[in-house]
Amino acid sequence: MTEYDRALSLQATDEDGAFVVDLSRDWSIGAAVNGGFLMSVVGEAARRVTVERGHPDPLTFTAHFLSAAQEGPADVRVDLVRSGRTQSTLSASLAQGGTDRVRVLAAYGDLAGLPDERLVTIDPPAMPPPEQCVRNDQMPAGNKPGPFLDRLDLRLDPDTAGWAVGEPTHRGRIQGWVRTPDDRAPDPVFLLMILDCLPPVTFDFGRYGWAPTVELTAHLAALPEPGWLQVRLMTDHYAGGLVSEDAEVWDSTGRLVARARQLAREPRQR
Amino acid sequence: MTEYDRALSLQATDEDGAFVVDLSRDWSIGAAVNGGFLMSVVGEAARRVTVERGHPDPLTFTAHFLSAAQEGPADVRVDLVRSGRTQSTLSASLAQGGTDRVRVLAAYGDLAGLPDERLVTIDPPAMPPPEQCVRNDQMPAGNKPGPFLDRLDLRLDPDTAGWAVGEPTHRGRIQGWVRTPDDRAPDPVFLLMILDCLPPVTFDFGRYGWAPTVELTAHLAALPEPGWLQVRLMTDHYAGGLVSEDAEVWDSTGRLVARARQLAREPRQR
Repeated sequence: MTEYDRALSLQATDEDGAFVVDLSRDWSIGAAVNGGFLMSVVGEAARRVTVERGHPDPLTFTAHFLSAAQEGPADVRVDLVRSGRTQSTLSASLAQGGTDRVRVLAAYGDLAGLPDERLVTIDPPAMPPPEQCVRNDQMPAGNKPGPFLDRLDLRLDPDTAGWAVGEPTHRGRIQGWVRTPDDRAPDPVFLLMILDCLPPVTFDFGRYGWAPTVELTAHLAALPEPGWLQVRLMTDHYAGGLVSEDAEVWDSTGRLVARARQLAREPRQR
Repeated sequence: MTEYDRALSLQATDEDGAFVVDLSRDWSIGAAVNGGFLMSVVGEAARRVTVERGHPDPLTFTAHFLSAAQEGPADVRVDLVRSGRTQSTLSASLAQGGTDRVRVLAAYGDLAGLPDERLVTIDPPAMPPPEQCVRNDQMPAGNKPGPFLDRLDLRLDPDTAGWAVGEPTHRGRIQGWVRTPDDRAPDPVFLLMILDCLPPVTFDFGRYGWAPTVELTAHLAALPEPGWLQVRLMTDHYAGGLVSEDAEVWDSTGRLVARARQLAREPRQR
C-alpha cells in the first residue's frame, strides 16, 4: 500500500455518506494541511458514494476553502443531490470539531465510458526531462515550508524555478514533473491533489508566502496512464489582490488528463 | 425599471434566505429558461443575503445545472455557510415543484474595496465596432431558437459568426458586443447572465443544438462601467463529448470584469 493510499484510509460510519479520517501532519504545508490533499480526501469519500451508481470519477469538482485544516481527525460528509444516467451530482464537506474546512459541489461520471474523439486539446509545454529539472531537495530551505513536499517527487523546469533562488521571472508560470516517491499510479481522485501541489504562481512575481485558495474548480478529462505527470501553473489575470491561477496536468503519454482554475488571495507578506 | 430588473423581482418569504420568483417565458431559449439568467436569479437572491454582511458582489460563483427550468414559479433558497471579514460563502438552490434545477456554491465579497493594482490581465480581442457587427435579428431563423435572444442586443464579430450561415470556422471562438435593448447598466449579478448568453462554441464546429452545461464557475474581477460589454467565448479543450468553454467579459473601458469556465456536454444532434 502506498503512502498516499494509507493517508486516504477513510472509515465509513453508521451514517450514510459520512466518513472519518485522520489527517496526518505529513501532508501539511505551512500551518495547514495541503488543500490539494484535502480535495483528494473529499474526492475519495465522494467516489465511494457514487461508484455504486456507476460514476466512479470526478468530472467537475469545486472546492471552497473556509478555514485551515490541522492534523488530527476530520469528518467528511457526502450528500447525493441527484443521480442520473450519465452523472451523479453531490455536495460534500470536510469539518474538524464542527468547523467547516472545505465545502464541495461536484459531478461524478465515468471517464472510461467517454468517446475517444478529441477535437481540440492542449499539448504539454516543452520542458527538459525530469533528470535535468530541479528537485524539491535542491531548493533553498526557505521555500520548503512543510512535510507535504516530501510526499512528492517534484522536478521543476529550471526555466520556471528562478523564484526559488530569489529571481522570479514575473511571467506567472511554474511547470515541472511530478509523481510520488513510491510511484503510485495516478487516478482521477489523485489528480485532484496534483492540481494544487505546486507553489503558487504568486512566487513567480516575488510575492512569497501563503496564497490562500478561495475556490478551486477541477475538470477531469481522461483516465491517466501510469508514470510521470507534467504540471503547468499559469496566470493570465492577477489584479485587485486576487489571482486567477490555471493548472493543467498531462499524463506520461502527453494527454491532458485534468485542469483546474482557482481564485486565490495574494500573500499578505510581500 | 428595466426589463431585466422586472424579471429579477424576487419575493422574500417568511423563511430566512428563501425567495419565490416567477420565471417568464421571455427568458427561455430552446426548451428551457436560459442558464445564465438563472444564475442572475440565484445570484440576486444570494446578494440580498450577503449585502447585509458588507459583501454585495459575487467573487466566485459555481452553478450546477440539474434539470431544465421551465416558465412558472420557482423557489430560491440561500444558506450562508460562513461569513468572515472579507467574504461570505454560501450554498444556494433554485427548484421548481420540489425538483432541483440549479445548485450553487459561491463566495461573495466587496469588489469596490479591492486594491486597484493590476499585475497581469487580459485585453479585449480586436473586433469591429458594434455597428459593423451582426445583429441577432440578422441571423438565420434556425439559429434563433427562443425569446431570450430578444432580451439582448447582441452584435457578433462577423469573423466569428460563420456558423450562423453554415460556415463554422472550427477554431472554437465566438465573440461580440452585448447590452440590453434598454441599455441597463451592468453590475456583477448581471454579468453572471452575460457569461452564458452567447451560443455555445460547439456551433463553431458545426455541431448545432443545445450543449447542456454541467457546471459553470464565474469569477468576477471588477465593477463594470456602463455601456457596451465585449464578450469572448473560446475552447482549448473539446474531447470525449465534453467541451471546456471559457468566457471573458470586458466593460466599456476595456477592463476585464468577469470570466467563466464551463463544462458542457456536446449536442447530441450533429
